[in-house]
Amino acid sequence: MKFSCLKSDLVQAIQIAGRSVANKPQTPIMSGIYMHATENFLEIQATDYEIGVLLHIPAEVEKPGDAVVSGRYLQEVVRTLPEENVTVDYDRETKIFKIDSGRSNFTLLSMNAVDYPQIHQISEGKTFKVSSAVLKDLIRRTTFACSTDETRPVFTGALLELEGNAVRMVATNVHRLAINEGKLEESFDRKDTYIVPKRVLEELQHITSSEIPEAVTVRCTRSEMSFETEKVYLTSRLIEGQFPDYRRAIPPEFSTRVTLKTADFLAAVSRVGLIARSSEYNTVKLIFNMGEVHISSDNPIVGKAEETVPAVIDGEDIKIAFNASYLLDVLKIVNGEEFVLSLNDSLKPAALRDPEKEDFVYILTPVRTKP
Amino acid sequence: MKFSCLKSDLVQAIQIAGRSVANKPQTPIMSGIYMHATENFLEIQATDYEIGVLLHIPAEVEKPGDAVVSGRYLQEVVRTLPEENVTVDYDRETKIFKIDSGRSNFTLLSMNAVDYPQIHQISEGKTFKVSSAVLKDLIRRTTFACSTDETRPVFTGALLELEGNAVRMVATNVHRLAINEGKLEESFDRKDTYIVPKRVLEELQHITSSEIPEAVTVRCTRSEMSFETEKVYLTSRLIEGQFPDYRRAIPPEFSTRVTLKTADFLAAVSRVGLIARSSEYNTVKLIFNMGEVHISSDNPIVGKAEETVPAVIDGEDIKIAFNASYLLDVLKIVNGEEFVLSLNDSLKPAALRDPEKEDFVYILTPVRTKP
Repeated sequence: MKFSCLKSDLVQAIQIAGRSVANKPQTPIMSGIYMHATENFLEIQATDYEIGVLLHIPAEVEKPGDAVVSGRYLQEVVRTLPEENVTVDYDRETKIFKIDSGRSNFTLLSMNAVDYPQIHQISEGKTFKVSSAVLKDLIRRTTFACSTDETRPVFTGALLELEGNAVRMVATNVHRLAINEGKLEESFDRKDTYIVPKRVLEELQHITSSEIPEAVTVRCTRSEMSFETEKVYLTSRLIEGQFPDYRRAIPPEFSTRVTLKTADFLAAVSRVGLIARSSEYNTVKLIFNMGEVHISSDNPIVGKAEETVPAVIDGEDIKIAFNASYLLDVLKIVNGEEFVLSLNDSLKPAALRDPEKEDFVYILTPVRTKP
Repeated sequence: MKFSCLKSDLVQAIQIAGRSVANKPQTPIMSGIYMHATENFLEIQATDYEIGVLLHIPAEVEKPGDAVVSGRYLQEVVRTLPEENVTVDYDRETKIFKIDSGRSNFTLLSMNAVDYPQIHQISEGKTFKVSSAVLKDLIRRTTFACSTDETRPVFTGALLELEGNAVRMVATNVHRLAINEGKLEESFDRKDTYIVPKRVLEELQHITSSEIPEAVTVRCTRSEMSFETEKVYLTSRLIEGQFPDYRRAIPPEFSTRVTLKTADFLAAVSRVGLIARSSEYNTVKLIFNMGEVHISSDNPIVGKAEETVPAVIDGEDIKIAFNASYLLDVLKIVNGEEFVLSLNDSLKPAALRDPEKEDFVYILTPVRTKP
């Protein structure tokens, strides 16, 4: 294999691929990045079985062929090359993998390309197109709510639900639940659900452009899902198991509806939350009363904090306590200058809505506090 | 104690003091920051016995007094306060330490101020004034060469030597040695040496202004040294022991003198060093020959790298190998567009000089390589 390409193209592609290389590879080949030069482009692959990524960059190919080298060293070496022109020359006989740029010459140890578990591209299954802007919004407003507890795998991913022309994403760690919805151009008769690992969705957010929305083609089978843009093909193993019926967690009605200024409330909860942070439940107490919310925390080993913020309270006064991080996480993704918190009583779940995104809702279970 | 002050003053002072609070305090009081309000200022102290810092900020003092609260929480709380006006109120009876700013009210747990080991200010010993610009240059060009090996304490600090009107700083980890010199306005008859912990010198670099050089008053006893500027008083325990005679490490003459472009050589050694990094001695080989230097590294588990850079060679050709990090560390602090490397043979120490700073010299022991 021998090809020349631009350093900037190679750096970008290998940086993306590098994130899909296993941190703790089970076999040496899994620490590698696969390269395949053919016609007038270079294909780059990386996978750790959960996630797989495949990219193409333009290249002047002198000798087609493939090779696998250590992802870590390839990334470091390519980033540091002195010139914009890079030539890669791999001799399958001697196994010598050479990278030349300007007066720099590198030789990296190579692995057997035939051993590499090449990414299998999905050709069947349900297929739809969605704008990267819609997809990024779905992800941004939900995946933060996933669980990190590996003993309950379904909660470490987000539910992707197709129903009619709606595409929904839902994530929960049992104590809080984020639901977001986007629209598709096409419509499906049958409802289908898939559970996608959080890490794959975050990678998808990384690799899709936020400036210029692009079309993403999504293909789904029972066990895999792929996301394809003009530049990148991303494939994900799906999480097996039954995601609970999230609709049952949404309270049908509320007795109190509070409208708050997002930035002010976020800043106040951040401050008061400082004191709560090292306590067991990271609890902030909220008292909604007389046109304001009194926010407080009390930590026997640190001290106390309290602050008041104006609030428009529609309904009964209420005292309630939440995990400060669960509140802060959602406040950071609210777009509106104001948001609405709907409550019943101090033991019942609350709902948070963003006027700038009607289809989004966040359900938050209160923390039970001593009276 | 009750006072009001500006948030920005308090944040800056507590941030500096916070770096001198022990990471792993031996007693609870050592996790605290000491505050003393009197007349029209607030004094702030922090120490971990090795380093001690004392600062003053303007304050409107309503009730003089002192208090000690957790350094960590004080830093976090103060940084986050909503308004520029801060009021602190401490009741010695109830031990309640209150911080108010705008609609935010914090209460932090306090410790017994009488238990705090207040910083003892040095009033005797050798005293001299030095510009912060001179002091910062002395530190910047030497402390990187200190050892991190705590079993040989003298090498974890830098030697400060006063001789005539010269102030010298010397640091070594046995394999490399950095010597830098500045001039004083006064002159001393007797030569004196002190070993100052690296950490204190780095803190001194942090707290002295680089934009506007200021006068620093240095006071030295056998066991302590203090550095005083208009805003900060820093005190340091000195390291006991005998620093070796560094003059004997400087070769009296060299057979080869090489002039190299700093940026080009630094970039090339960085690249070639990538391959060496995970090997035992992190070795790069240099071959000076025919108007260029050939830089290479060879790591059986990663690969190879080589690069050539033009060099003006005055004297015999030579092959030599160095620890790549020891070369890179010094190249980063060279100010000149070019620098001079003086060599004898592949087993003898080399010297590196910066034409922009005559009094600086770096001695580097080569790595013995297999032929």
